[in-house]
Amino acid sequence: MSLARVQNFSLSLDGFATGEGQRLEAPFGHAGERLHEWMFATRWGHEMLGQPGGTGGIDDAFARMFAPRIGAEIMGAGKFGPPGWHEDPTWKGWWGANPPFHTPVFVLTHHSRPSIVMEGGTTFHFIDASPAEALAAAREAADGQDVRIGGGPTIVRDFLAAGLVDHMHIVVVPILLGRGVRLWDGLEGLEKDYAVEATSSPSGVTHVTFTRAGV
Amino acid sequence: MSLARVQNFSLSLDGFATGEGQRLEAPFGHAGERLHEWMFATRWGHEMLGQPGGTGGIDDAFARMFAPRIGAEIMGAGKFGPPGWHEDPTWKGWWGANPPFHTPVFVLTHHSRPSIVMEGGTTFHFIDASPAEALAAAREAADGQDVRIGGGPTIVRDFLAAGLVDHMHIVVVPILLGRGVRLWDGLEGLEKDYAVEATSSPSGVTHVTFTRAGV
Repeated sequence: MSLARVQNFSLSLDGFATGEGQRLEAPFGHAGERLHEWMFATRWGHEMLGQPGGTGGIDDAFARMFAPRIGAEIMGAGKFGPPGWHEDPTWKGWWGANPPFHTPVFVLTHHSRPSIVMEGGTTFHFIDASPAEALAAAREAADGQDVRIGGGPTIVRDFLAAGLVDHMHIVVVPILLGRGVRLWDGLEGLEKDYAVEATSSPSGVTHVTFTRAGV
Repeated sequence: MSLARVQNFSLSLDGFATGEGQRLEAPFGHAGERLHEWMFATRWGHEMLGQPGGTGGIDDAFARMFAPRIGAEIMGAGKFGPPGWHEDPTWKGWWGANPPFHTPVFVLTHHSRPSIVMEGGTTFHFIDASPAEALAAAREAADGQDVRIGGGPTIVRDFLAAGLVDHMHIVVVPILLGRGVRLWDGLEGLEKDYAVEATSSPSGVTHVTFTRAGV
């Protein structure tokens, strides 16, 4: 069974998954990297940067669920680049020559362009599609493995609202961003379709998982 | 030192402390009692209702911090009664003849009325005052003990925005209310003034405490 999964998706305590003022120099706007420090502090985060050390507890265990069994990712246009990236034909994402996805990645955008093959197994495809259509395309590319719904918050919200997410890992970071893009708007009663678990970490963050009944 | 404290203040995962449609038959609107089930399930909650049993773990330990060292409470008009209560001269709150406060309670309202002495030590005072003025009055009544900022969300937010809260105990309940009154609006960066701890409970809720440096 191929699941649609959200992994390592960070929110502030007041529900913002990204700050205000996203731009080339600030992919998360005024939030900076504060929503993701918990991840960079783990052994997994250190390995991604080629560094030794890092924490080995619950944050590391959750962070490492990012890649296993994932065969494709779906992301929104706002995750792929800063506002206006579609006007730059040389833009290939924020992540350099070897992005951390290592699978096909479907970028949801109204501005289609040819696919881009990167190093390390990542290929970016650009499609203008509904959540269900995008998931069908990503599932086919995933070849029986799971599909990661990679964000940003608007895309995760759209997939949740469409009932398409099977498993979701949210990380609540104890900061108040005050402004930005919220995840939860319009999702009243979402918990009824899921088993929800919350586990706080000594680092200060709380991991919240939503697992759909029967998956 | 007399602290201003928030205790047992429940929020949904999407940040609402009360639902939409507050009225006589539904003090928390469409939220019903879902934000407070964790509290009623504790031994302390059972004791309040004169019943045996209840859970004895972390939820009970936090819940029991409601009363000790508290010498007065401040609450908003929306906590004291449903919309329009000030037009009913016989309204004495939701809690019956012996309310669970057992101290002076200062109700912030633009519609002043004579104080009401209840059974069990609770006296309701009705004042039209700023947060700082109300806290000064409650501190005097508390006679050296702490003052509980009792809610609703608008009042807690006003006291937080004015920098008047020394300790806060928030309980995040894993439900999505979707609508109602939010606590966190306009409090960007609040965490900088506090040590913040999050502790999840086997019941599913997460206790988040804010403790101001030096108190």
